[in-house]
Amino acid sequence: MGKYQRMDKHKMALMNKRNVMNCIAEYGPINRAAIAKKVELSVPAIMEIAQELIQQGMVVSAKMPGKLSGKPLEQFSICGDHFRYVGVDVGRVTTRFALVGLDHGVLGKLKFPTIQVENESGFVDRICQGIHRVIDESGVDKATVAGVCVTMPGLIEHDTGWVIFSPNFGWKDIPLKQWIAQRLPYPVRVESANRAQVIYEISTHKGDQDRTVFCVGLGYGIGGGFYYKGQLYYGASGTSCEIGHMRVANHSDEPCSCGNTGCLEAEASGAALARKAQRAVREGRQTALRDMCEGDPDRITARWVFDAAEENDEFCRALIDQSARYIGSALATTINLLDPDKIYLCGGLLKNKGDFFQRILKYTVEMQMYQAGRKVEILTGSLDEWNVALGATRLFPYFGEDLND
Amino acid sequence: MGKYQRMDKHKMALMNKRNVMNCIAEYGPINRAAIAKKVELSVPAIMEIAQELIQQGMVVSAKMPGKLSGKPLEQFSICGDHFRYVGVDVGRVTTRFALVGLDHGVLGKLKFPTIQVENESGFVDRICQGIHRVIDESGVDKATVAGVCVTMPGLIEHDTGWVIFSPNFGWKDIPLKQWIAQRLPYPVRVESANRAQVIYEISTHKGDQDRTVFCVGLGYGIGGGFYYKGQLYYGASGTSCEIGHMRVANHSDEPCSCGNTGCLEAEASGAALARKAQRAVREGRQTALRDMCEGDPDRITARWVFDAAEENDEFCRALIDQSARYIGSALATTINLLDPDKIYLCGGLLKNKGDFFQRILKYTVEMQMYQAGRKVEILTGSLDEWNVALGATRLFPYFGEDLND
Repeated sequence: MGKYQRMDKHKMALMNKRNVMNCIAEYGPINRAAIAKKVELSVPAIMEIAQELIQQGMVVSAKMPGKLSGKPLEQFSICGDHFRYVGVDVGRVTTRFALVGLDHGVLGKLKFPTIQVENESGFVDRICQGIHRVIDESGVDKATVAGVCVTMPGLIEHDTGWVIFSPNFGWKDIPLKQWIAQRLPYPVRVESANRAQVIYEISTHKGDQDRTVFCVGLGYGIGGGFYYKGQLYYGASGTSCEIGHMRVANHSDEPCSCGNTGCLEAEASGAALARKAQRAVREGRQTALRDMCEGDPDRITARWVFDAAEENDEFCRALIDQSARYIGSALATTINLLDPDKIYLCGGLLKNKGDFFQRILKYTVEMQMYQAGRKVEILTGSLDEWNVALGATRLFPYFGEDLND
Repeated sequence: MGKYQRMDKHKMALMNKRNVMNCIAEYGPINRAAIAKKVELSVPAIMEIAQELIQQGMVVSAKMPGKLSGKPLEQFSICGDHFRYVGVDVGRVTTRFALVGLDHGVLGKLKFPTIQVENESGFVDRICQGIHRVIDESGVDKATVAGVCVTMPGLIEHDTGWVIFSPNFGWKDIPLKQWIAQRLPYPVRVESANRAQVIYEISTHKGDQDRTVFCVGLGYGIGGGFYYKGQLYYGASGTSCEIGHMRVANHSDEPCSCGNTGCLEAEASGAALARKAQRAVREGRQTALRDMCEGDPDRITARWVFDAAEENDEFCRALIDQSARYIGSALATTINLLDPDKIYLCGGLLKNKGDFFQRILKYTVEMQMYQAGRKVEILTGSLDEWNVALGATRLFPYFGEDLND
């Protein structure tokens, strides 16, 4: 957006309409006076916009008792029936599909194991089959499906929908959006999983839409999403927030899927914990994992490491503490640089028993600069396995013409 | 700013007026048709706004030959005479004062060594004396001084003008703006030096105002400033961009002025190079610095380290290479997280002979994630010793009511 971009009546009207729509989505059922107060417009202006939204099938009105008076008042709500969205979370282990209405009500869910077939084209076929299935099984009218958003981890160029680089899938320069759009009769968007995750968090915590929020996914890999001034943060080349590839161990040889060494993901992710534990068992280190794996170290997962640590296995406790320390170091850097209001930690690693989250907090505070980010809150985000898929369904603005903004 | 903030005609008019003013400041002398094209407004609208600005004494018009036709055309320029600003750069070694007009023409300069007197109040007295002197010596009418902006390194809360923490000055919780405002008859702003630096860079490079720009100051200390979507980036608690306190050496005991260890500033700044070299000489390490300092290691500065490295002193070459590597690591992290269009490196460390800048570039590319920040350019910024003081004079918006925005 240019510095000298003109503000005119058309843009002003569009902004106001969008505000009314979003306000009804957030607070509905809500009456005209309450909307007018929230969006700082007059009641007649609200009524004009509301009539337009009702005609477009996005909003419904009904006489409902007012909260204070109990008298019947015209209340506006989002109409869930006219527009449906599909969100797809292509994870390293599982692919999830969610179908929702404009009111965010869930109409269908589907998941299956992510199988990496030899060519990417076959992979895309499987994703499209899943999309068709979740729509078919829900029984909704296909004509109401207004968009599909497919997410995966890695560097995604959001305006073109190209997968620039997805280390954990080994993909480089794949025109994913184009391939999916060719196979489907719906508008398609492709996004990074972490952007969908941060959108899920800010949509489900009241007030976060006005805040500066960084969201970190701690699972098989480690990624981030950043929400600032009411929008997702996109860098100059459409990448950004790659906290997983922050160098946290300056002299480490630990190889990362991205090609570097010493990255946070290589040192502290679920995949890293499993790899380090497997290696230790192969090298004959003293740990309960040796017996647990019954001679097959490849079976060891990050979950096993957490379980053994709970049983006071010293090696596993040290491994988890080291992981927490590296994550704390990366969060301290993020706070020093970005000074957000909130950081949400999400993902599978936080589902384990033990004090992993508290250890991360302790190290973050130790390593962040004195008084930098004084207001930051570090919180556990949603651990719902559907959060990325549901976040993806919220990546559609309510006005179709902005689909690719 | 709330999500549902109303856009109305008054705000629209203010935005358009500011656009016209900024456009004349950037491109003047400029005629009405050219302004109209740049700010996307009609010629009559431009004429109305220009008349207002002329009446307020901010803009002057003159008949000047048009660039293409050579015919006399009414051209608009900023009037430098009615508003003057003082920018103050309180550095660790030198304090600099610059007085400029609204057209950015320099009307006076003054510098003196920064002496840390026992109490902060005496220190503030000295700053205010300098401000009075630079105005007096220039002979301008005091009534035209529309603002003073004082900058220093560290965590500055920009809305209150408190110095939250300035490690290199040892200051914590000082109401600097209030103390200065009590002593001066001018509107006062207090900012971080690195924010003034990035504003100087984006103002002096055409097109940068529309870009995402990170600026790093590499001198006695190390700090950063970030410019995004046409504005300075302020974090939730008014801090942010503390690249100097990013942990780059995860197992280092090197103490930082902030209280932590292993920070970029503790490992790679001018102060760090001097301290490491002094220690090495005291410990009897093999280096030409031993003879150069004639028995007094305390005399060794970062400049000496660069000079000896140019003479192929191995110890000094290794020290500089290590510094470049740490800076590269911090830049790689900044790119992975923020994916800016441009990074400017400024400050005294870059004034030395040798391939320091090239080494930094090499390590940055080595350590940044594959394909992250594909469009980022890393450039040498201004090495003018006045850039922070001049940047500070540009931290005043043209409309007084927004002074403390």
